[in-house]
Amino acid sequence: MKTLFYQLFEKETSTYTYIIADGQTREAAIIDPVIETIDRDLNLLSELDLKLKYILDTHIHADHITAAGEIRKRTGAQSAISESARVSCIDIPLTEGSKLYLGDQVITALATPGHTDSCMSFVFDGRVFTGDALLIRGNGRTDFQEGSSDRLFESVHKKLFSLPLETIVYPAHDYKGFTSSTIESELKWNPRLKKDQKKVDFIQMMSELKLDHPKKIQEALPANRACGEKK
Amino acid sequence: MKTLFYQLFEKETSTYTYIIADGQTREAAIIDPVIETIDRDLNLLSELDLKLKYILDTHIHADHITAAGEIRKRTGAQSAISESARVSCIDIPLTEGSKLYLGDQVITALATPGHTDSCMSFVFDGRVFTGDALLIRGNGRTDFQEGSSDRLFESVHKKLFSLPLETIVYPAHDYKGFTSSTIESELKWNPRLKKDQKKVDFIQMMSELKLDHPKKIQEALPANRACGEKK
Repeated sequence: MKTLFYQLFEKETSTYTYIIADGQTREAAIIDPVIETIDRDLNLLSELDLKLKYILDTHIHADHITAAGEIRKRTGAQSAISESARVSCIDIPLTEGSKLYLGDQVITALATPGHTDSCMSFVFDGRVFTGDALLIRGNGRTDFQEGSSDRLFESVHKKLFSLPLETIVYPAHDYKGFTSSTIESELKWNPRLKKDQKKVDFIQMMSELKLDHPKKIQEALPANRACGEKK
Repeated sequence: MKTLFYQLFEKETSTYTYIIADGQTREAAIIDPVIETIDRDLNLLSELDLKLKYILDTHIHADHITAAGEIRKRTGAQSAISESARVSCIDIPLTEGSKLYLGDQVITALATPGHTDSCMSFVFDGRVFTGDALLIRGNGRTDFQEGSSDRLFESVHKKLFSLPLETIVYPAHDYKGFTSSTIESELKWNPRLKKDQKKVDFIQMMSELKLDHPKKIQEALPANRACGEKK
């Protein structure tokens, strides 16, 4: 098999973690690991006989604590996040177009700011891991962490919607039981971001959401700026 | 794209529903739909421009109510379940090796009794939908609905473990956030059913489980024998 792919779900915060790997060399990356499910995920890596090379976070999460720091400590894998997240404990600061390799297979980082100012999406073997930038028939909120509806609209319309239509979309969260989408489906059916949506209307809609702050934000943001590790 | 594949999750009972389709003709099947998520699933079929041809149930579920009858009424698709389930409202009674076609793509039914006496698994394009026969690192209980640990062991070891090792396993449930496995992983790592497990030990383990009955069983079994439709 050319590549391996596993999607994992953390029920409390409805977070998806992903494991991707090269079938030849068994080199692997984990995307958006959650501290509560670290043992499940490390055990799976071990059972699959994978060598964890990279720990990727799509952004600094406000709703859960990343397992990046703890996985890095336990495995020696390198952690990677956007350079602009200014996280001190990161091995590989990513910028637009950064490439990481699992064997011959490439992970390409795309800067997709808007939910936060340092959100990245990761493209790998016909899939895009969109974090909270593009959700299935939705999108991440833009009302804290230097969020910007203007920038989110541009990230989705100019960057994500330029990917091949059949690219499978894997978000960081879903709350309705969807596990994947495609660029084509979001372009057609995303109620806020579909192709013919006007930016001005999107910005208006986002400004009217009036969402409560995430329950764990006070704890999660400082923890995630330290890769989830306790001081 | 040759085939389409969507996995959907119902949180209350941790049930997976699947949509599979032929990319050319857009003919589709839905596997193990749940009554609570019928609108989500029919809406997705419509957005994807799929023509629902078959509604498949892997078995008569004891933990949730199938949407088969209601989907059949709303769409005209044909419902299919094991012949030995003796469900009156079924269009296509399935037996070992039954084949259903989505365009040129074939769904093959395998009789995999043991969790119930009429469980079937469905093979489609490198995937196997195992219902409650084989779960990820687990298996369905065998203590009601003519369950039999002996038969379940045979179904998994003789039939499912004969599929190609790289076949992706998609179960009807997962309670730990796993979304898929492979035949190879279950053969190596399933704690109760792995390759070198002895049948006598499996039967012993299953007899000692002492599980509570599913919360909805009194309601679900009679409802599902009528395809989930209200009388």
